[in-house]
Amino acid sequence: MISLFWLVPLAALTSLLFALIFYLQVKEGEDGNQKMKSIGIDISHGAMSYVKQQYKVVLLVFAFLAGLFAIAGYVYHIQSGWTWIAFLSGGFFSGLCGYLGMKTATMAAPKVTQATRKSLGHGFQIALRGGAVMGLIVTGFALLDISVWFLILNYFIESEPGMKLLIITTTMLTFGMGASTQAIFARLGGGIYTKAADIASDLIGKVEFGFREDDARNPAVIADNVGDNVGDVAGMGADLYESYVGSIIATSALGAAANMMVNGQLQMKYTILPMLIASLGIVASIIGVYIIKVLDGDNMKKLVRTMNNGIVASSIIVVILSFLLTYTLGIANWISLSLCVLVGIAVGIIIGEATNYFTSHANPPVRHIAESAKVSPATVIIAGLSVGMNSTFFSVLAIVGGMGLSYWLASDGQALNIPQGLYGIGIAAVGMLSTLGLTLATDAYGPIADNAGGNAEMSGLDPEVRERTDVLDAVGNTTAAIGKGFAIGSAALTAMALLASYIEELRIALLRGGQTIMNLPGEQFVQTAQASIIEFMKYYNVNIMNINLLIGLFVGSMLVMVFSGLCMKAVGNVAETLAMEIRRQFKNPLVLSGAEKPDSNQCITITTRGAQIAMILPASLGIIAPLAVGLILGVAGIMGLLAGCFSTGLVMAVFMANAGGAWDNAKKYIESQKGGKNSLAHKAAVIGDMVGDPFKDTVGPSINILMKIVAMVSIVTAGLVA
Amino acid sequence: MISLFWLVPLAALTSLLFALIFYLQVKEGEDGNQKMKSIGIDISHGAMSYVKQQYKVVLLVFAFLAGLFAIAGYVYHIQSGWTWIAFLSGGFFSGLCGYLGMKTATMAAPKVTQATRKSLGHGFQIALRGGAVMGLIVTGFALLDISVWFLILNYFIESEPGMKLLIITTTMLTFGMGASTQAIFARLGGGIYTKAADIASDLIGKVEFGFREDDARNPAVIADNVGDNVGDVAGMGADLYESYVGSIIATSALGAAANMMVNGQLQMKYTILPMLIASLGIVASIIGVYIIKVLDGDNMKKLVRTMNNGIVASSIIVVILSFLLTYTLGIANWISLSLCVLVGIAVGIIIGEATNYFTSHANPPVRHIAESAKVSPATVIIAGLSVGMNSTFFSVLAIVGGMGLSYWLASDGQALNIPQGLYGIGIAAVGMLSTLGLTLATDAYGPIADNAGGNAEMSGLDPEVRERTDVLDAVGNTTAAIGKGFAIGSAALTAMALLASYIEELRIALLRGGQTIMNLPGEQFVQTAQASIIEFMKYYNVNIMNINLLIGLFVGSMLVMVFSGLCMKAVGNVAETLAMEIRRQFKNPLVLSGAEKPDSNQCITITTRGAQIAMILPASLGIIAPLAVGLILGVAGIMGLLAGCFSTGLVMAVFMANAGGAWDNAKKYIESQKGGKNSLAHKAAVIGDMVGDPFKDTVGPSINILMKIVAMVSIVTAGLVA
Repeated sequence: MISLFWLVPLAALTSLLFALIFYLQVKEGEDGNQKMKSIGIDISHGAMSYVKQQYKVVLLVFAFLAGLFAIAGYVYHIQSGWTWIAFLSGGFFSGLCGYLGMKTATMAAPKVTQATRKSLGHGFQIALRGGAVMGLIVTGFALLDISVWFLILNYFIESEPGMKLLIITTTMLTFGMGASTQAIFARLGGGIYTKAADIASDLIGKVEFGFREDDARNPAVIADNVGDNVGDVAGMGADLYESYVGSIIATSALGAAANMMVNGQLQMKYTILPMLIASLGIVASIIGVYIIKVLDGDNMKKLVRTMNNGIVASSIIVVILSFLLTYTLGIANWISLSLCVLVGIAVGIIIGEATNYFTSHANPPVRHIAESAKVSPATVIIAGLSVGMNSTFFSVLAIVGGMGLSYWLASDGQALNIPQGLYGIGIAAVGMLSTLGLTLATDAYGPIADNAGGNAEMSGLDPEVRERTDVLDAVGNTTAAIGKGFAIGSAALTAMALLASYIEELRIALLRGGQTIMNLPGEQFVQTAQASIIEFMKYYNVNIMNINLLIGLFVGSMLVMVFSGLCMKAVGNVAETLAMEIRRQFKNPLVLSGAEKPDSNQCITITTRGAQIAMILPASLGIIAPLAVGLILGVAGIMGLLAGCFSTGLVMAVFMANAGGAWDNAKKYIESQKGGKNSLAHKAAVIGDMVGDPFKDTVGPSINILMKIVAMVSIVTAGLVA
Repeated sequence: MISLFWLVPLAALTSLLFALIFYLQVKEGEDGNQKMKSIGIDISHGAMSYVKQQYKVVLLVFAFLAGLFAIAGYVYHIQSGWTWIAFLSGGFFSGLCGYLGMKTATMAAPKVTQATRKSLGHGFQIALRGGAVMGLIVTGFALLDISVWFLILNYFIESEPGMKLLIITTTMLTFGMGASTQAIFARLGGGIYTKAADIASDLIGKVEFGFREDDARNPAVIADNVGDNVGDVAGMGADLYESYVGSIIATSALGAAANMMVNGQLQMKYTILPMLIASLGIVASIIGVYIIKVLDGDNMKKLVRTMNNGIVASSIIVVILSFLLTYTLGIANWISLSLCVLVGIAVGIIIGEATNYFTSHANPPVRHIAESAKVSPATVIIAGLSVGMNSTFFSVLAIVGGMGLSYWLASDGQALNIPQGLYGIGIAAVGMLSTLGLTLATDAYGPIADNAGGNAEMSGLDPEVRERTDVLDAVGNTTAAIGKGFAIGSAALTAMALLASYIEELRIALLRGGQTIMNLPGEQFVQTAQASIIEFMKYYNVNIMNINLLIGLFVGSMLVMVFSGLCMKAVGNVAETLAMEIRRQFKNPLVLSGAEKPDSNQCITITTRGAQIAMILPASLGIIAPLAVGLILGVAGIMGLLAGCFSTGLVMAVFMANAGGAWDNAKKYIESQKGGKNSLAHKAAVIGDMVGDPFKDTVGPSINILMKIVAMVSIVTAGLVA
C-alpha cells in the first residue's frame, strides 16, 4: 500500500470531525420562544415519521436484493461473495447520512429563525453551518466506507498482479449500487412528498382561500415544511452521496483497468488517485466554510457574493492541491490529469451559470415567461416548456465539451487510447464533485432557510423577521442553481465512467464465469479479460448496427420517459388527494378562522403513504429494466439501453430542472412588481410554478439517479448477463 | 430490366388517374349559396397567399443547397453530378403535391357543407374523395419520380456489376433529401401557422369574449381555417410524401447492398421489390376508397366502422398481393419478406390502437385528465404530461418489436446477417406505408370536414347542419389516431433504414474519393467498399466507447430538445402577437357586434409572416447539425448523432402527440357532460388543450421529419465527411 493512501481515511475522519464541530455550534444556538420550538418539533416529528416509513420499505428492498446477491455469490458463483455486504454497506451509509442531515436541518431551522431576529448575518451563519453538517457527513462517510473497503479487499483478495486491483474496484462498485438503490427511493419518495404537499397547500391555501404562504391555519403547512427536509435535504443528500461514491469508485476501476499492463505500484497510484483528489476536496471544503464569513450589516447581494467567493476559493484550492498531489505521486501525465480536475470544476460552474441564465429573473428567458403570463396560463406553460428545452443547448455543450477535453487530455490526444481517455473523464467527474462538502452545504442551506421562514410565519413573529428569512431563502435560490449544475453535470460524467466500468465488470465476470460455470478453460478467459476495450466490443459484437443494441437504445429512451411520466402522475395524484383533505378540513369554520388547530397529522399521513406507494413502481423500473434487457438482448442490448437512457436522461433532466426553475422565478418576478401579487398575470404564473414544482424537484433530479442506477444494476448483474 | 418493374410507373399513373377522377367528382358537387362560396374563396385565397410566401422562402433554400451540390459534384467530385437535379426534383414534386392537395381541400370544403345539408352520408362521401385526391397525388407523383429516376440512372450510370445498382439507389437517396427539406419547412411553417391561429382565436374569441368556435365576428377565424389546410393538409402531405419516398429508396439501397455478391438479376429483384410493394399498395388503396360506401341513414358509429373496414381491407389486400408478388419474383425468402410487410402493417395498427387508448375519452387516461380539471389547470397540465410520457411505453415496444421481428425474419434468425436484417426492417416500413393513398385520404379528410363545419357556422346555416359537420369532424378525429400511428411508426422504421443506407453511401463516397481526392489506389477502396457493414464499423472505429460517438449521441438528443423548444416558442410568440391584434380589432364595437366585417387579412398576414420567420431557425438546425457534427467528429460522431436523435426523437414525438391528443379529448369529454361547457373544469381543460395544440400538431409531427432530415443530410454529405 502506498503511504499516501492513508490520507483518504484521514480526510474522511476530518470531515466527520468538522461535521460534529459544526453540529455542536448549531446546537448551541438559541431556541426561540415556546411556539417556535413546538413548530420545530412538529416538523421534526413529521420528518422522522416519514423517514421511518421510508426506511421500512427500503429495508425490505435491500433484504430482498442482498439475498439475491448472496445466492448469486455463494450458490451460483456468478457474483463475488463480497457483493451482498458491499451492497448493504453502501445503502446503510447513504441512509445514515440522510437521517443525520435531516435531524440537523430540522433542529437548525427554529434556531435560524431566532438568530435572524437579531440579524441577517447571524441567521445566515447558522443556516450555512447546518448545511455544512450535511455536506461533511456525506463526504466523510463516503470516503470512510470507500477506504475501509479498499483496505479489507486488498487484504483478502488474491489474484495475478494487474488483475487484483481491477477485481477490488469492480467489487466495490456493488456498494455504489447500494447507494444508488437507497438514493432512488430517497429522491423519489422525498420528491413526491415535498411537491405533492407544496402543490396542494398552494392550491387550496393560497389560490382558493387567498392565505399567505405558511399560514398556520393551513393543515398542509407542516407537511409542506416537512417536505423541504425529506426532499431537499435527505433526497438531495442521498443523490449526491451516490454520485460522489459512484464517480470515485468507477474512476478507480478505470484507473486499475487502464494500467493493468504497467507495474503494480503505478497501477495502484492511478487506482487511488480519485480517492486522493476527493480527500483534497474535503480540506478545501472545510476551508471554504470558514472563508464564508458574514458581517452584521451584510445585505443579500453581499451574502451571495460571499457564498460564491467561498465556492470559487475552494475550487481553486482543489486544483492547486491536485497539481501538487499528482506531481508528488510521480505520475508521468500529472499535468494532464490535474487539468482534468480543472475541466470538471469548470464544467460544473459553466452549467451553473447557464442554469442561472435561464432561470434567473434578471435575464430574458424568465422575463419572457412573465410577459406571457399577461396573456394566459396556457402561454405561460408553452413559454416555460420552450425555455427549458432550449436551455439544454448550453448545458449539453458544456458537458460534451468537458468530456471531449478531459478525454483528449488524458489520452494524449489519441482517440484510440480509450481506457486512458475514459479515466480522464472520470477524473473530471471526481474533480467536479470534490468540493461536494461545500456545494452540498450551500444546497442544504436552502431548505433550512425556507423552514426558518415558515417558522417565523407560523409563530406570528414580526413581519421584519419574515422579510429577513425571505432574503436568506432568496440567497439559497441563487446558489441552488450552481448546485443543480453540479448535480446534473456530475451525473452525466459519472454515467460515462460507469459505462466504461461496465466493460471492466464484464471482464471480471467472464474470468469468473470461465472458471466456474461456462466450462471454458480459464486461460482463454484470462486472455479475453486482458484484451482491450475495443477487442471487447468486437467480442460482443457491440456495434451500432447491431439490432439488439438499436432495440436497447430505444428502450433506454422510453425508460426515461415512462419513469418521468410515472413520477409526474404520482405527484399529481398525491397532491389531488391532499387537496381534497385540506378542502374537507376547511369546511370547519373554526379551522378556517384559526380558532381550532388544523389536523396536520392527517395531512402528513396522507402524503407519506401516497409518496411511499407511488415511488415503488418507478424505482423498480430502474432496477428491473436493465436486468430484463440484459437477459433478453445481452451485452449489446445493455450498451444500447445505457446509451439511450443517458442521452435522453441528460436532456430531460436539464429540461425539467430549468423549466421548473424558470417558472418559479417568473412568478417571483411578477410578485416583485407593484400590484403583481393580485394581477391576472400572477394567477397565470402560479399555475406555471405549480407545474414546475414536480419538474424541478421531483422528476428532473430523479432522472439523474435513474441514469446511474441503470448503469449500476447493469454492472452488478454483468455476470448473469455474460 | 425485369419486366415486372413496369408495374411501378403503371401504378404511379393509375394513382394519378384516380386522383383526377376523384377530383372531378368533388368538383361536380354543388357550391351552396353566395355566402358559403365567398367564405370558401376567402379561405382558399388565404391558403394560397401563405403557400406563395412559403414557397418563396423554400425556393431560396433549394437554390442555395442545389448550388452547393452542383459545385460539390462538378468541381470537387465528392458528389454524383446527378445529386443537384435529384435533390430539386424531390423538392419540386413534394411541393406540387402540397399545392394540389390544398387546392382540392379548399375547393371541397364548401361543397361538403352544401352536401351535408342534404345528408351526413353525402357530406362524408365528398370529404373522403377530397382527401383521397391528396392521398393518390402523393403516392402517384412519388412513385412516378422514383421510377423515372431509376430508369434514367440505369441508362446512364456505368459501373462494375454489383456496384451499379448500389450507386443508382444511393444517388436516388439525394432526392429523398429534397423531399425532406421541403417537408421540414412545410411541417414547421404550416404547424406554427395553424396552431398560432388556433390558440389566438380561442384565447380571445372563446375564452375572453365567450364566442362560439368559428364565430364570423372573430377576425382570426379565417386564419384558423386556413391553418387547417396549410398545416393538416399541405404539411401532413409533405411529411408523408417524404416518409414514403425515403422508405422506398432507402430499402432499395439496402436491397442492392445486401445482395451485391449474388447474380445481377437477383440483386435487381431485391432492389425493385420495395417499389413493387408500393405499387400494390396503390391498387389496394383505390379499392379501399371504393369499399368505403355510405348509406343515407348512417350515423357516426357506422361511419367510423366503414372507414376502419376500408383500411383493414386494403391492408389485407396488400399482404395477400405481396405473397403473390414475391412468389412470382422467385425470391428464395419470399415468405419471410411478405411476413415483414405484414409486420409493418401490424405495427402501424398497434401504434394506432395504443394512441387511441391514451387519447380517446372512452379510456381511463383521458378520464383521469378530465378529473384533474376539477382541481386546477396545473393538475390538468401535470396529468396530461404524464399521460403523454407513459404512452411511449406501448408505441416504443410495438416499434422495437416490429424491428426485431422483421430483422429476425429477413436475416433467417442470424443476428450477424446485418444487411439482410436491415432490409427486412425497410420492407416493414414500406409495407406500413404502402396503403398511404388511403390512410392519407382519411387524414386529409379531417381538415376538410373541419373547414366544412367552419363554413356552416360562419355562413349562419341551420344549427342542424353544424351538428352534422361536427359528426363528420369527430369521425376524422378517431381515424386521425391511426394516421398518427402510421406517421410515427414509419418515421422510426424509415430512420433505421436510412441509418443503414448511410453506411452504403459511405462506401460509394469512399470509392469515389479513393479514385479522385484521397489519392489512394482505387482498388483498395473498392475492396473497402465491398466489405461488410461490420468491417465498416471497424474501419471507422464506430463503437460505443468511441468518444466522438458518445459526444454525437448527446448532441443528437440535445438537438431534438432545442428543436422542440424553438418550435414551442415560435407558436407561443406568433399566437401572442396575433392575440394582441384580435384584441385591438375588438376594441371597435362595430366589429364586436358583427356590424362590420373584421380585418381577416391582417390576421392572415401576421400569422404568415410570423410562421415564415420562425420556421427558419429550427429547420436550419436540422440541416446544419449533421454537417457540423460530421465535419468535427467524423463518421463515428454522425452515427452517435443519428442514434441520439432517433431515440430521443421517437419518444418525444410520441409523448407530445399523445399528450396533445389527450388534452384535446379531455376538453371535449367535459363539454359533452351536462353543463360541462360553463364549468370551472372546462376552463382548466381549455388551457390543457391550448398547450396541447403545438404539442400534437406542430412539434410532435415535426420531430418525425427532423429525424429523417438529419439522416438524409448525413447521407448526402457523407462524401464530404469521409
